[in-house]
Parts: sequence; C-alpha cells; structure tokens
Amino acid sequence: MFEQVSIIGCGLIGSSVFKALKKNGSVKKVITFDNDKSVSEIIKKENLSDETVSSLEEAVSNADLVLISTPISSFESVVDTIKKHLKPASILTDTSSVKKGVDAIVKKMNLKNISWIPSHPVAGTEKSGPKAGSPDLFKGRWTILTPDSKIKDSDVKKISLFWESMESKVKIMSVEDHDRILSLTSHLPHVIAYNIVKTAMGDDEKMKKDIIRYSAGGLRDFTRIAASNPTMWKDIFIDNSHLIVNGINQFSKNLDEFKKAITEKDSKKLLEIFEKSREFRKAIIKAGQDTDEPGFGRK
Amino acid sequence: MFEQVSIIGCGLIGSSVFKALKKNGSVKKVITFDNDKSVSEIIKKENLSDETVSSLEEAVSNADLVLISTPISSFESVVDTIKKHLKPASILTDTSSVKKGVDAIVKKMNLKNISWIPSHPVAGTEKSGPKAGSPDLFKGRWTILTPDSKIKDSDVKKISLFWESMESKVKIMSVEDHDRILSLTSHLPHVIAYNIVKTAMGDDEKMKKDIIRYSAGGLRDFTRIAASNPTMWKDIFIDNSHLIVNGINQFSKNLDEFKKAITEKDSKKLLEIFEKSREFRKAIIKAGQDTDEPGFGRK
Repeated sequence: MFEQVSIIGCGLIGSSVFKALKKNGSVKKVITFDNDKSVSEIIKKENLSDETVSSLEEAVSNADLVLISTPISSFESVVDTIKKHLKPASILTDTSSVKKGVDAIVKKMNLKNISWIPSHPVAGTEKSGPKAGSPDLFKGRWTILTPDSKIKDSDVKKISLFWESMESKVKIMSVEDHDRILSLTSHLPHVIAYNIVKTAMGDDEKMKKDIIRYSAGGLRDFTRIAASNPTMWKDIFIDNSHLIVNGINQFSKNLDEFKKAITEKDSKKLLEIFEKSREFRKAIIKAGQDTDEPGFGRK
Repeated sequence: MFEQVSIIGCGLIGSSVFKALKKNGSVKKVITFDNDKSVSEIIKKENLSDETVSSLEEAVSNADLVLISTPISSFESVVDTIKKHLKPASILTDTSSVKKGVDAIVKKMNLKNISWIPSHPVAGTEKSGPKAGSPDLFKGRWTILTPDSKIKDSDVKKISLFWESMESKVKIMSVEDHDRILSLTSHLPHVIAYNIVKTAMGDDEKMKKDIIRYSAGGLRDFTRIAASNPTMWKDIFIDNSHLIVNGINQFSKNLDEFKKAITEKDSKKLLEIFEKSREFRKAIIKAGQDTDEPGFGRK
C-alpha cells in the first residue's frame, strides 16, 4: 500500500491511526509528529512513532501518504509549512469533521503532483490526546472520502485500502454532501448536548449538587458527548456554522411543536413523536451503527 | 424487613425489583402481578413471582409492602381497585418518575392506617418490559423517597432499608424538589433526545439512509435515550408538563445564545460553553454517576 505514512498531529485520531497501522502491519514505516512539545514527549515515551523527527518538513519529506490530524484551526499553517517538502506523487489527506474549509485551503495552494484526498473517519470518543488512542477505533465505522473528480482513481483506491486495512468501511461523496450530513448526525447533536448540560447546570450552586447526583436519569449521557475536545469542536462549529445554524433552526421549530404538545397534554401527538424515534433507533441498530445491548448504568 | 412484598406492574422496573429481592433474599415472599395477559404469561414462564395470583385484590391482601410500578396513567385505577384490600398498617409505594400527580391521587383517597411513601428509583435503560429486568439495575443508583411529614419514621426507615437491600442509595426530599430536579436531569433530556432524533431524521427518505449510516458521530447516543418506553414517557411529559415546559423555555433561551456565538464565529464564547460542560462531566464522574471509561463505539 504505502512504504511510509506520516501522521501530523497526535491526538485521539492520530495516535489511533498509528496504533491501528502497527497492529495490521500494512505500512512499513509510520512517522508521527506533533508541534506540541508535551505531545512530542508522549510520542517518544509511548513509542507512537517509528522514528523521532524534529520538524514538520523532516516528517513529511519521504512520506507516500501524509495524514493531517490536527485541529482544523492549525490545518492551514501545517499545509503551508509542508507544501514544498511533500514527496512528488504522494497523497495528502486529513481527518477533519468539516470538509469545505480544509478543501478550500488546499485547493488555494495549488499543489503540483500531489493528490489531495480529504478523509473523515466517523469515529471517536469523548477522550482526547495521544494517550486516548485505540487500534480498534475505526473498526466497523465509516470513513468518508471527498476527492475532487480530477484525482486519479488509483490514488483514491490506495487511500480506500489504507482505511480498510484499519477495518473501516469507506464511502466516497462530495464535500457538500459530507458537510450537510455530518451537520445533522454529529455537529447538531453536539450543539444540543452542550446546551442541555448548560441548561441543566443552571446558576444555582445548591441545585447543581442535586443535578449531578440524579443525572443517571438521562442527563449523564449528554455530558459524555459534551465532554469532547473543546478546541476541535470550536473549530467545527465555526467551519460549518452555516449548515449547523440551519440545523438549529429546524430543531427549534420542532421543539416548539413538541412544547405545544406537552403544554396541551396531547397524548396522541406525543406518542407519534416517540414511535418515530423508536423506529429510527431500530434502523440504526439494523445498520450496525450501535448494539442493541441495553445501557444498564454504562458498564 | 418485610414478610411479603407485592409488585403491581411487571415492566423493566417491576421485574428488576423482583430479581433484586430474590438475589439478596431480604424478603420472604415476593408476588408479582400484571393486568396485561401477555405479561402474566411471561411472569409464569420466567418465574417472576413466588406465587401465581389472578387478581389485584389477591395480590395485595397479605402484602406488608405494595409497590406499584405501572405507567402513571394506570396508577389511579390500580390504587382505586386495591385500596379496600390493603393489609392494615402496610406500606404503599410506587416507582413513578413524577411525584406530584401520584401523590395527589393517593392523598385524595384518604387511606386509613396505610403509610404512603412514594419512591423513585433513578435507574433504567432504554429497554422495557418484563424480560428487560436486571437484579443489578438499582446498584449504586439513587432512590428518592418523598413521604409526607406525617408518615412514621419507622416506616420510612423500613422502605429505605428495602431499597438499600438492592444496593440503591436513598435520599428523602419533598415532592416539589423531586419534580423540579428530575425535570432537568431526566425529563428535559428526554424531550431533547426525541427532538434531535426527529430533526436529524428529516423528511427526505434518501437522506435518512445516510443519516443512519453516519450516526456514530453523536446522533446514535441520542437515539438510545429516545428509544425508551413511549407510554411511560408520554405519561411523564403530561404529569410534569409545567416544569418541563419551563425547562424547554430555558433551553431555547440558551440555544439562541449558542446560535449567536456560532453565527458570529465567536471562539471565546464557544470555548467558555465547552469548558463548563467538561467541568460538569468531571463532577458527575467524581460523584460516581458514570465511569470515566471512553465510549469507544459502545462495546
């Protein structure tokens, strides 16, 4: 597949890619680099790179595939630094959750003889940082690729095999479709999780203790989502703000209808809303996107 | 503690109480009864009662504790049927998620020589029905009791020991405090979970398939909550509608602020919201209400 892969940015995703590649042995040499000194220390200590390199340029110069898994807000400066050092005919990819912004950044740079194929592995946990990685993070999950139509099929095939070697399923779609779908399946749910936690917390310190104590009734599950990496989510919300705001508007419209049904104690309407959610849940389980095991107090 | 406990309504909670009591051996005889014929069959088949009884009256007449764990909408007719058959000096309790309504129903009936001590075990899964029960459902979770000040301390002590025998922690508070706290920790999160699922589903059939496929990015976790028992939640929303609507209003106010920060790409404001959520998550873990294990694709 690839002789050398270089991973730029060693957080949850970067370290998971390293571990997954080492586990499956599909790539000879994997170099991991992070601009953050404290992360560099962890990379050394935990053996998260096949070779210690001291600069971005050095990290990428021999790579057949460069994978950028930094926060979106660092993406432009990373590409700007490495662009003249990329190996001819190599592939450049990323792992960002929004594609429009990074795609525009790379296209603006007009890289010659480099295949830019954006990737988004739809996988994660609420944990972040190099120690949070798992070799099985991508197993059974989807990775979405959004290459331009001008990109060589053979390169798209190569990067598909790369993700598939980590047991991910691969889907190719347009940047626009990606950002629209993810705004609903991931970005909007995160907005809502943060917002429910904020609302439940309130401002009353005495009440906060009780809210924490009895959170097992539902709130707890939202706090898990809302505990995700703040920098990453700030970047996502800014980068996909237009579509997320559309989602919020639709959500608010639906919430007003729901509130009306609760205010009017409209049993029929309430049951209708619930039944639809259950059907959707069943479809998600059927599609293998979650197990049907009950969440007994989260073992 | 009690010689005989009778459980009326054998869903997730009723069957879990039976299993927990049988596991810890604290009660000599446990009778389970359900008005639904198909549930009665399961009670027999799965040995979810120490004795087969054929009516509500028969179920309760020798019980030292009667625990009603039916949907709230069936509560009044159950109490009305059993009230003349309750054993003198016995205790009556329930497991409803809203206390104001059931408390008013029982007080209106003016039962003589019966201790009415409402219970709410704050535990559950998205699964329902008699087969969903687990003897460990209440382990480490809180049960809230909302007895009137006129109730004998010795009876409150008895029912506290009853829940504690199932490894639940017990807290006593007023009906009003209970309903207000739970409106935020449980009822509002369920409204929001249903609403996000509804919003993400949309009306476009083609899009629905993609939404299901990529739900691992956050939405999936909401569908789990939104898969809970529809009848139970319809009743909760109706019974606690006033406080839930207050919660929705506060939620909407916060969401508008959040939308403004996203629209204006206000990094500082966004990071502020996120950091608070993370702190709250840490407090929940510290309080033992969830584990800190990451949710890697929900093993």
